[in-house]
Amino acid sequence: MRAIIQRVTKATVTVGEEEISSIGRGLCVLLGVSVEDTQKDADYIVRKILNLRLFEDEAGRAWTKSVVDRDFEVLCVSQFTLQCVLKGNKPDFHSAMPAELAQPFYHSILENLRSSYKPELIKDGRFGAYMQVHIQNDGPVTIDLTSPMGPSDPRQLSKQEKQQQRKEKTRSKGPSESSREKGAARSRRDPNASSGADGDVSSDREP
Amino acid sequence: MRAIIQRVTKATVTVGEEEISSIGRGLCVLLGVSVEDTQKDADYIVRKILNLRLFEDEAGRAWTKSVVDRDFEVLCVSQFTLQCVLKGNKPDFHSAMPAELAQPFYHSILENLRSSYKPELIKDGRFGAYMQVHIQNDGPVTIDLTSPMGPSDPRQLSKQEKQQQRKEKTRSKGPSESSREKGAARSRRDPNASSGADGDVSSDREP
Repeated sequence: MRAIIQRVTKATVTVGEEEISSIGRGLCVLLGVSVEDTQKDADYIVRKILNLRLFEDEAGRAWTKSVVDRDFEVLCVSQFTLQCVLKGNKPDFHSAMPAELAQPFYHSILENLRSSYKPELIKDGRFGAYMQVHIQNDGPVTIDLTSPMGPSDPRQLSKQEKQQQRKEKTRSKGPSESSREKGAARSRRDPNASSGADGDVSSDREP
Repeated sequence: MRAIIQRVTKATVTVGEEEISSIGRGLCVLLGVSVEDTQKDADYIVRKILNLRLFEDEAGRAWTKSVVDRDFEVLCVSQFTLQCVLKGNKPDFHSAMPAELAQPFYHSILENLRSSYKPELIKDGRFGAYMQVHIQNDGPVTIDLTSPMGPSDPRQLSKQEKQQQRKEKTRSKGPSESSREKGAARSRRDPNASSGADGDVSSDREP
C-alpha cells in the first residue's frame, strides 16, 4: 500500500461543479492499494497517517506534532495510479487492486481512520469518480509512505529490520526463497517496533 | 531521486501574498534529491517527466500522450521531505542532499527540462522558501517515480532487470555483496532498455 501524504492549509474535492468534500489544515492523503495488500498494510498506513509528526508545536518547533495532536483534518482519496509500473513511458496499473475489491477495502480504511480519531475530521472523495482534488500544499511538505509488508522500500526499513533481513539472507538457501516469503516474514514484526531511535535522531530543517 | 508527479488542471505557487509561479494544464512535480543522486538520476527523471503518457489523445483515449505531446506545462518544485526515513513517527531527512549542493543540482534539472522542451513551459518554485503550492490534481492522477539508480524500488524494475537481479543473486557469494554494490551494477544498464514491452501491456482504466 502506498500513500502520498501532503500537509495542507486546505483541500477540497469537486466532481463536476459540485464540491463534495473539504478540509482546513491537515493532511491530504492519496492512497494506492495493491493486489497484495492485507489488513496489516491498512493498519500500518492508518497508524502512520494519524501519528506522523508533520506539524509544528505551539512554540513553532517543526516536526513535533501529529494531525491528531493538533486536532486537524484528514482528506483521504483513493488513487490507484500510485500502483503504477512503467513499461517504457506507458503506465501499467495491473498491480493495483481491482476496483470491486479495492472499494470495500478503501471504505474499511476510512472507517479505521474514523474510529481511531474523530469521525467528523475524516473526509473522503468519491471512489472511482473523475474528480478535481484541490490541494494547497503547505510548505510544501510531502511524504511518500509504503507499507513495509508490500514491495520493500529500503528507505522505510529501520536499522533493526535491516539487520533482520541480513540474518534471513544468511540463513536463506539462495534464490529459491522468494521475496514474497521474506515479505511475509517481515510482516510478522510490529512496524512500530522501529521507534526505538525516537528523540535522538531528528531533523529540524524547515521545508 | 524521487518525484511525485501530479497531473493538473492548473497549479500555482505563492510566497506570502505573492504569486510567484503559475501553470495551466500539465504536471506538478515535487522533486526530492538524495545525497546519493548523480547526473544519471537527474537525466532519468527529466526524461520520464517529459515522456510519461499521462494524458489522453484528441479522441479521448487515456494514457496515450505526454506533456510534450500535448504542449502542456510543467511546474517543478524542490521537495526535500520526499527523502524521508521514519524513526517511529518522526521524519528524519538526513538522506536528503544538503541545500548548498541540492540548490545548484535542482537548477541544473530545471535547465535540463527547459533545453529538452520549451523553456517558457517550465516553471519553478523558490528554492528553500516557505511556499503554498496550489495543486488542482486532475483525476486525480499521481505517479510516484524513483530513479532506478537510487534506493531500489522493485515496482520500478522491468522484467528484464528483475531477471538480471536473479542472475546476480545466483552468482553472489552471500551476504558479503552489499545492496549498494547491486545498485551500482544495475545503474550501468540504460533504464530505457525496459521499454521493449511497449504497446502490448497497457491499461485503459480511467482515474
